[in-house]
Amino acid sequence: MKSIVLFGAGNVALHLCKAINKSKNFQVIQVFSKTKKTLDNFNLNIDKTNDLGTIKQASVYIVAISDDSIIEFSKKIPFKNRLVVHTSGSVGMEKLSSNNRRGVFYPLQTFTSNAKINFLEIPICIEADNQEDLKVLEKLGRSISNNIQVVTSTQREHIHLSAVIVNNFVNHLYHMGQDLLHHQSLTFDILKPLIIETASKIKGLRPFETQTGPARRNDLKTIEKQLHLLKDSPYQEIYKNITNSILEKYKN
Amino acid sequence: MKSIVLFGAGNVALHLCKAINKSKNFQVIQVFSKTKKTLDNFNLNIDKTNDLGTIKQASVYIVAISDDSIIEFSKKIPFKNRLVVHTSGSVGMEKLSSNNRRGVFYPLQTFTSNAKINFLEIPICIEADNQEDLKVLEKLGRSISNNIQVVTSTQREHIHLSAVIVNNFVNHLYHMGQDLLHHQSLTFDILKPLIIETASKIKGLRPFETQTGPARRNDLKTIEKQLHLLKDSPYQEIYKNITNSILEKYKN
Repeated sequence: MKSIVLFGAGNVALHLCKAINKSKNFQVIQVFSKTKKTLDNFNLNIDKTNDLGTIKQASVYIVAISDDSIIEFSKKIPFKNRLVVHTSGSVGMEKLSSNNRRGVFYPLQTFTSNAKINFLEIPICIEADNQEDLKVLEKLGRSISNNIQVVTSTQREHIHLSAVIVNNFVNHLYHMGQDLLHHQSLTFDILKPLIIETASKIKGLRPFETQTGPARRNDLKTIEKQLHLLKDSPYQEIYKNITNSILEKYKN
Repeated sequence: MKSIVLFGAGNVALHLCKAINKSKNFQVIQVFSKTKKTLDNFNLNIDKTNDLGTIKQASVYIVAISDDSIIEFSKKIPFKNRLVVHTSGSVGMEKLSSNNRRGVFYPLQTFTSNAKINFLEIPICIEADNQEDLKVLEKLGRSISNNIQVVTSTQREHIHLSAVIVNNFVNHLYHMGQDLLHHQSLTFDILKPLIIETASKIKGLRPFETQTGPARRNDLKTIEKQLHLLKDSPYQEIYKNITNSILEKYKN
């Protein structure tokens, strides 16, 4: 049984902790957060501390804190030559302090506090300074997921960028749809079957091939009409840009 | 049993025909297309014709052809005072020739030829010149779907616009994600669990509340880095616009 210490007690840490402690070969033995309130909210029966001086010996230390705190925090870790990994999509591995052996353990999913997460299908992107540590991360990954990807920091940056586009941006488009309907006294419910179907299509078909709509069929009349509907809307620029991108993509 | 004639033999016509002919109270008795090849591809055992002179008597005539042909076609229909409806999201009801009683029967879904469609959950937006015809359309709708919405032409225009955003635009964002990964020798598969989870969240939560990502948390450093990754990409403008829209939306 290999032991894990979590630095951070937010959503990612909580979901990781639950998944790891269901596995056979790994166990989270301690959770650190500098904020006592965050620790109190971490409602699992595990040793908790807000004192870096009391951190236990472990095989892997996982830093699951906000992206912009990772670099500074890694400098404060009070030991050397152990395996310390972060869980961020956008922070380079080499940004971690070189006091310790470095790695990345990035689960590619959106973690909402209350939503149940099935880790088995979540891709986990790993990276490490050396092959031995990479093997440890691979084993840790395989203990909770069937989809482990060894990627470079550059690849991971692009994965994170793509994730922002298909998750955060897509969600904003959902909001735009809701907002436009709301102004017509219509509810968002009417769009839900379409949203689910649009997402489901990617399982079997490439998005390039399933593209439909006014821009795909070069229907400039409908595009003109819809731009007019958006004439006083902050969304008109987004409509124009995505429409132009589709027109450009399929012009031949 | 009320009878239906379909004008048009494309995807929408085919899916509608299958659904209606499974229902109890309505039956498609004839399909018209001016193109013989399209009729040949319409592989259901129903009377087919490419001669407007042979159109049968029916309770409802459904014009399921491309948006920009509807107006002209409706003028050529060789009879008067019958109920003629179109299936388009973007064409006003009053654009149909006034030779006949007018209506709209707009199923809010994306129809790919081979995909199986469960009509029961598809919202169908209806509209008619008079209450009696509206009742007929409502009955027809209820015979294939549990979700019938009576909407005005203006509301339907906005529903169609929202559908373009959450379906066509979202699909293009999926393609962007795939494209960016492809340039890093990574496959689209890695994004699929995230895409499915993002769409599933709308079932229980409003997109405004589930918004996450760099723009949502005002993480200008990550935004700067990602804009840099896109510096030679045609997608940079889209990234900027959606990011600014999210920043603006949550600035308080």
